[in-house]
Amino acid sequence: MSPTAARITAVDTYDIRFPTSRELDGSDAMNPDPDYSAAYVVLRTDAEDGIEGHGFTFTIGRGNDVQVAAIDALRHHVVGRGVDELCADPGTLNRDLIGDSQLRWLGPEKGVMHMAIGAVVNAVWDLAAKRARKPLWQFLADATPEWLVSQLDFRYIADALTPDEALALLNSGREGAVEREGVLRERGFPGYTTSPGWLGYSDEKLSRLARQAVAEGFTQIKLKVGADLADDIRRCRTARSVIGPGIRMAIDANQRWNVGEAVEWTRALAEFDPYWVEEPTSPDDVLGHAAIRKAVAPVKVATGEHVQNRIVFKQLLQAGSIDILQLDAARVGGVNENLAILLLAAKFGVPVCPHAGGVGLCELVQHLSMFDYVALAGTTEDRVIEYVDHLHGHFLDPVVIRNGHYAAPTTPGFSAAMRPESIAEFTYPGGTFWAADLARQGLTDQKGAAA
Amino acid sequence: MSPTAARITAVDTYDIRFPTSRELDGSDAMNPDPDYSAAYVVLRTDAEDGIEGHGFTFTIGRGNDVQVAAIDALRHHVVGRGVDELCADPGTLNRDLIGDSQLRWLGPEKGVMHMAIGAVVNAVWDLAAKRARKPLWQFLADATPEWLVSQLDFRYIADALTPDEALALLNSGREGAVEREGVLRERGFPGYTTSPGWLGYSDEKLSRLARQAVAEGFTQIKLKVGADLADDIRRCRTARSVIGPGIRMAIDANQRWNVGEAVEWTRALAEFDPYWVEEPTSPDDVLGHAAIRKAVAPVKVATGEHVQNRIVFKQLLQAGSIDILQLDAARVGGVNENLAILLLAAKFGVPVCPHAGGVGLCELVQHLSMFDYVALAGTTEDRVIEYVDHLHGHFLDPVVIRNGHYAAPTTPGFSAAMRPESIAEFTYPGGTFWAADLARQGLTDQKGAAA
Repeated sequence: MSPTAARITAVDTYDIRFPTSRELDGSDAMNPDPDYSAAYVVLRTDAEDGIEGHGFTFTIGRGNDVQVAAIDALRHHVVGRGVDELCADPGTLNRDLIGDSQLRWLGPEKGVMHMAIGAVVNAVWDLAAKRARKPLWQFLADATPEWLVSQLDFRYIADALTPDEALALLNSGREGAVEREGVLRERGFPGYTTSPGWLGYSDEKLSRLARQAVAEGFTQIKLKVGADLADDIRRCRTARSVIGPGIRMAIDANQRWNVGEAVEWTRALAEFDPYWVEEPTSPDDVLGHAAIRKAVAPVKVATGEHVQNRIVFKQLLQAGSIDILQLDAARVGGVNENLAILLLAAKFGVPVCPHAGGVGLCELVQHLSMFDYVALAGTTEDRVIEYVDHLHGHFLDPVVIRNGHYAAPTTPGFSAAMRPESIAEFTYPGGTFWAADLARQGLTDQKGAAA
Repeated sequence: MSPTAARITAVDTYDIRFPTSRELDGSDAMNPDPDYSAAYVVLRTDAEDGIEGHGFTFTIGRGNDVQVAAIDALRHHVVGRGVDELCADPGTLNRDLIGDSQLRWLGPEKGVMHMAIGAVVNAVWDLAAKRARKPLWQFLADATPEWLVSQLDFRYIADALTPDEALALLNSGREGAVEREGVLRERGFPGYTTSPGWLGYSDEKLSRLARQAVAEGFTQIKLKVGADLADDIRRCRTARSVIGPGIRMAIDANQRWNVGEAVEWTRALAEFDPYWVEEPTSPDDVLGHAAIRKAVAPVKVATGEHVQNRIVFKQLLQAGSIDILQLDAARVGGVNENLAILLLAAKFGVPVCPHAGGVGLCELVQHLSMFDYVALAGTTEDRVIEYVDHLHGHFLDPVVIRNGHYAAPTTPGFSAAMRPESIAEFTYPGGTFWAADLARQGLTDQKGAAA
């Protein structure tokens, strides 16, 4: 078979769960006991190069099997596609997946089904970048503005961003891109760390990790808040006293509050000079965020990790609801939709500070910020990528942090691939870890009912 | 075992699909070939009365298995609950399901996971109303305002509706309720019909069905639009000439347009005096609907069948985006959330005209409108429930239409139960219809991949 005739031969899925709830890592006001998990997908081809495309949806435990079932439901759109055509134009598959009228009923473009589309689309971009022998950020930065515009779906956002405007933004983003690529390779992209601020940690651990974060070169940390105001006041005071006035401190309520509560609570913490308040209320509440932002200024308002698609981001920008847009690599419909969101942010002049952490979210989203820096926004001012020191060792190309910065990946692809031994150990319920764990509990057939 | 100790013993799920795509019934600008389906759930108890609770999510084919998996993921919250406590306070289960932090990550409160919650919660209300020996509309209308308020989740809507406001609305809704219940039992609740207007129908069939609709007593019909403007102009002209000026004609674009296109297209059809334009753009676009509404007045703007939850409905009302709120019984988190939505509509003075059709949506949603009439809004003025003459024969307590009105159900429960023989025939892929169909096609193992 000639290389040009290569096709996608399989879409393999894996239900992978890490038992993180046993350590209280990742605990916040809404998520007391997450088991960080991935509904993981591998696109296999019959090409001689043996290159695979990897992608995933991040979840926090129960329901990871539902997410896997959703990816499985997309399989018939992918198997049999020509690899060259797919990699030359991921946008066509993206539109076909979003446009499947029967599956669209289950969203549209939100929740389980949309995240499944994101996992598959991201796997295609991983495949495309690997075949081009470039890390994804560079693959995107090297692409022509015209081709990037062809990858966008302007449906439902054309009132805020036209194809001509997108092209103009990308053309002006190219000015100075070569110099910025050099800076990026040398210095990396700024990060900030949430590691000190989980709700489950003692004040001593908070202090120690905050001090360590500053020593490691981070210029911003983040604290989870929202469970108990007296605790939050004490924890914010502690953290501020450790890091001093020159380090930014964000606070994150993980959607805990109503609009009025968000305003009151944020004002009560204002004396500790929080840089932004994150997810103060429902991610669906465009008008609520706008009201909160007016009331809590100069504290900035940030959201995005649970924002379901470009249409809600569009409105958050149109309504002046946010100061900071928190892109997530695996919540929306994949790279194509995230390109649209980056362009919307650029149009409205709102800095993008991605959500990361979880399983592999740092690995993925760094590529989008680096593309944004090199070839679109053109600056790292007021831009930081979240960093959490969790589970990176399970990835073949884990993020590298140096002096508080994400080092630019050099390995081809989207950095999405997990180590085969991690997959073998943590696949649920049959992997070696879970099989032993369930046997220990006398449970041998608990699919979908862990915890 | 004493009756008070009765517990939920099983949450059984069924993937039920009807091959409607073979007839083009239900075709519209976004959904050319739906196979109307239900992810169906039965709550079984060990009570001596043998009463079961039935509920479902409506889907249009592929992905119905994903929806079933989502319902399965909720099972552990339900099995073992005491039946009396559950029926005395469905709100507690409702909050527990929405509050499952791990499953919440898959939404939150939207898409596949939220519809699964709706199916289970609706099944509880079916069980509760059956045990009270009342049709659900009456069960709700007879409840005290205080208890109804206790069933609501005010999270994320308290800035628009407080518990005190909800209580006041329900208290004033009780005035005249006895008289209205008599009117309802005698006359029913007004319906309108979409049966003439599917895109796949010929002009001859459109004319014939429109004429028939008027003869049957309907005072409003609806046409699907949005695929081709010249066709829409011809079809609207045809329909208007058949029904005359005194019958209302709604048009429905099923989310086909961008904001600008919606305005242009609606204006191009304005000469045929459409009463409302439905789903002109994405259901997520609160600000887009507000812009469209301003531009197309006096044509009214309606949406709701794909609106994911109370938080988006809240904003559609706050922003003045809609003239008509189209409640759906099986899209949001069930009766509890729909009570909140009815109260929001009452607070903002916007009439509720539910979406129905599909599989069993007419059967369910009539109860909510009838409660709204008897005990909340207190009027049927400008209020109509969609009616489509599809698949009612599969239900044990099918809707009854008389002179263009839904007759008030008298059978206890939520009218959700399908006939056992229909379940046996149309369960996918093992039911008698599908097994024979797949065998005819030489396919015997196609779970999740029907097309």
